[in-house]
Amino acid sequence: MLKINAERLWQSLMEMAKVGATTKGGVRRLALTSEDAAGRALFAAWCRDAGLTLSVDRVGNLFARRAGSETGAAAVASGSHLDTQPEGGRFDGVYGVLATLEVVRTLNDAGIVTRKPIEIAVWTNEEGARFTPAMLGSAAFTGVMPLETALAAHDADGVTVDDALHASGYQGERAVPGEPFDAYFEAHIEQGPVLEEAGVPVGVVTGGQAIRWLDVRVTGRAAHAGTTPMQYRKDALFGSAEMASELEAIAADFFPQGLATIGEWHIHNASRNTIAGELMFTVDLRNPSDAAIDEMEASVRTRFEATAARRGLTIDITQHWVSPSTPFDPACIEAVQSAVNELGYVNQRIVSGAGHDAIHLAKHCPTAMIFIPCVDGLSHNEAEDALPEDVARGADVLLHAMLARAGRA
Amino acid sequence: MLKINAERLWQSLMEMAKVGATTKGGVRRLALTSEDAAGRALFAAWCRDAGLTLSVDRVGNLFARRAGSETGAAAVASGSHLDTQPEGGRFDGVYGVLATLEVVRTLNDAGIVTRKPIEIAVWTNEEGARFTPAMLGSAAFTGVMPLETALAAHDADGVTVDDALHASGYQGERAVPGEPFDAYFEAHIEQGPVLEEAGVPVGVVTGGQAIRWLDVRVTGRAAHAGTTPMQYRKDALFGSAEMASELEAIAADFFPQGLATIGEWHIHNASRNTIAGELMFTVDLRNPSDAAIDEMEASVRTRFEATAARRGLTIDITQHWVSPSTPFDPACIEAVQSAVNELGYVNQRIVSGAGHDAIHLAKHCPTAMIFIPCVDGLSHNEAEDALPEDVARGADVLLHAMLARAGRA
Repeated sequence: MLKINAERLWQSLMEMAKVGATTKGGVRRLALTSEDAAGRALFAAWCRDAGLTLSVDRVGNLFARRAGSETGAAAVASGSHLDTQPEGGRFDGVYGVLATLEVVRTLNDAGIVTRKPIEIAVWTNEEGARFTPAMLGSAAFTGVMPLETALAAHDADGVTVDDALHASGYQGERAVPGEPFDAYFEAHIEQGPVLEEAGVPVGVVTGGQAIRWLDVRVTGRAAHAGTTPMQYRKDALFGSAEMASELEAIAADFFPQGLATIGEWHIHNASRNTIAGELMFTVDLRNPSDAAIDEMEASVRTRFEATAARRGLTIDITQHWVSPSTPFDPACIEAVQSAVNELGYVNQRIVSGAGHDAIHLAKHCPTAMIFIPCVDGLSHNEAEDALPEDVARGADVLLHAMLARAGRA
Repeated sequence: MLKINAERLWQSLMEMAKVGATTKGGVRRLALTSEDAAGRALFAAWCRDAGLTLSVDRVGNLFARRAGSETGAAAVASGSHLDTQPEGGRFDGVYGVLATLEVVRTLNDAGIVTRKPIEIAVWTNEEGARFTPAMLGSAAFTGVMPLETALAAHDADGVTVDDALHASGYQGERAVPGEPFDAYFEAHIEQGPVLEEAGVPVGVVTGGQAIRWLDVRVTGRAAHAGTTPMQYRKDALFGSAEMASELEAIAADFFPQGLATIGEWHIHNASRNTIAGELMFTVDLRNPSDAAIDEMEASVRTRFEATAARRGLTIDITQHWVSPSTPFDPACIEAVQSAVNELGYVNQRIVSGAGHDAIHLAKHCPTAMIFIPCVDGLSHNEAEDALPEDVARGADVLLHAMLARAGRA
């Protein structure tokens, strides 16, 4: 059975990791900086060597096309991003781009012509580390975000995406939103511990989970820690601590699908010897099921409000962000599943916990993803790593899923 | 039975409240500023009118002396402070100073000569709002803090106490540490809700409680809120929340004497969608008994460490500050109790929750305090208030306690 050239793929990954390399073994290639432009230039050179045709759209998304035999057929696309976190790793994003390049090179080596064209996509500003929000390029491409909004987004220095596109030479002509692809695949490191802990090298990703962000404000009464007897206190901190434990219990009620996190926690006018009068904390809820995340939020509200009332505290719970679940396309999932079955790789179904360009693409065209394990589940970290054999297996799966979708001429 | 002139005392309090008055009805008279100097000048003028002899020591503590009939006898002293919080009230500190002035005026009116002299003490920088630490003047007077250290303390602009004493004209000659008084009394608003809630107008203060400040650092593992299953998490926040609830339970075990507060809580690199990897929080423990506060701290350590171990977290608990309990002098407490009994005022024993100059004085000479209720237990607030009848009753008690100690000639 046809397989990609594992050594060539690994060498490409290591070569790309030199662009913006940090002293600690990571990569810093912030979106549309000179480092990002250098990474794109290296990728573009490899694409030209592979005989691909390059184009750039209005938000700088870069496409490399391998022609198919059928005139006018929509492309089977795959890719990810080349930008990184400020202290990022060598695999997040770049793996999906270079795995697709390796798919093309493998088809070239084997002399295979596909019916539908194949396109490699490099999405602009996926990380959101320079420009907010994350996944900006794919949001504009899929019409999730108006082009004007995307171009007006600015970094901490006030430089807009539009400015940065001109400065980096990536202000392209291709229309945004773009024409839907025949299908979109994306290979990515898992960025979590599930596959590694299970000893499974390939994850067949069935979609993205629902996310709900809540802001919780708890108000009691600030008072002197030394002069206020316990029975007269309205302590916003002890009340919030009880709510945090309730949130943990709610996650247990929805185990293993439900996730709950408190990431921020601010006491207003905090002082060591003052009882907290007002406290704000965030809640991050995740669940693959929209119905289940509704239940989780309802449970949070019921339990938190009861606790506040019992303690004489007032509470205000507001939705900060609501993102519904994103099921991937059954036919694309099946193409991935068939490929992995034929290759005989141990695999499991998995839901994407993080955001990816594929989550936007799924609203635009049939989409699926392939995950490979990352060492210690670590990502967004200079120590991010993946095993060469896992890197190769994921690209093999991508090759056969794309080939099945594109069809041999 | 002899009583103070309630109307005159109230008028003096309201007159002093005009010096540094804020638009919200409070007072801003930071230590050794022009406002503080103006307050001291007004007080000094009243003292001269009352025939008292003024002196100032090396840290600006101001004393006003009424002679006694016995040559060489140590003075029976009483006072407090005239400096305030940045948004302070009309009673905190100033009440103890002007109540003592009213005692002297009442003795003058009644033509009473005491055997021992009487001194009114105005302590420098009690609040700690301008110079750290609080109770600086009384600390230097009692030898708790070296004079050089006190003079070198500086405010946020780098101005030292020594500079400010010269600028305000309060660099005096009287030696520091000072000669011990025969006894020291201090009348003060309670700064808590106990007396008001109990409907008791006078508190006979038996001492200051022990205070212990702990720093707790909990370390887990920062990870992505979307990609990390609950069972793989080492969440420093959920662990700390459980510890907070344990702390609340420990306070309940030591109810009503034990107090416990978490005033600060900082997540390292906090982000809404990141599991807390490291968290620092403070613990403030109080108890009138040194043995009991030892037990409280031991219980904190045992329970927190067990919780951390069960959750796979590491924990580090360090003592930030240890202040033992300060029992007041039995004879001085009895002088206050006898006075209040003779006056027939409803009263109760109470432990001081806050710091006061009297806590330092207690290490230097026989000491006791008198508390009166403050409205809603509120202090360090522009809305701080006290009822005129309570203000008068506290001064009546002070009068008779001091008179008993000083003796009629």
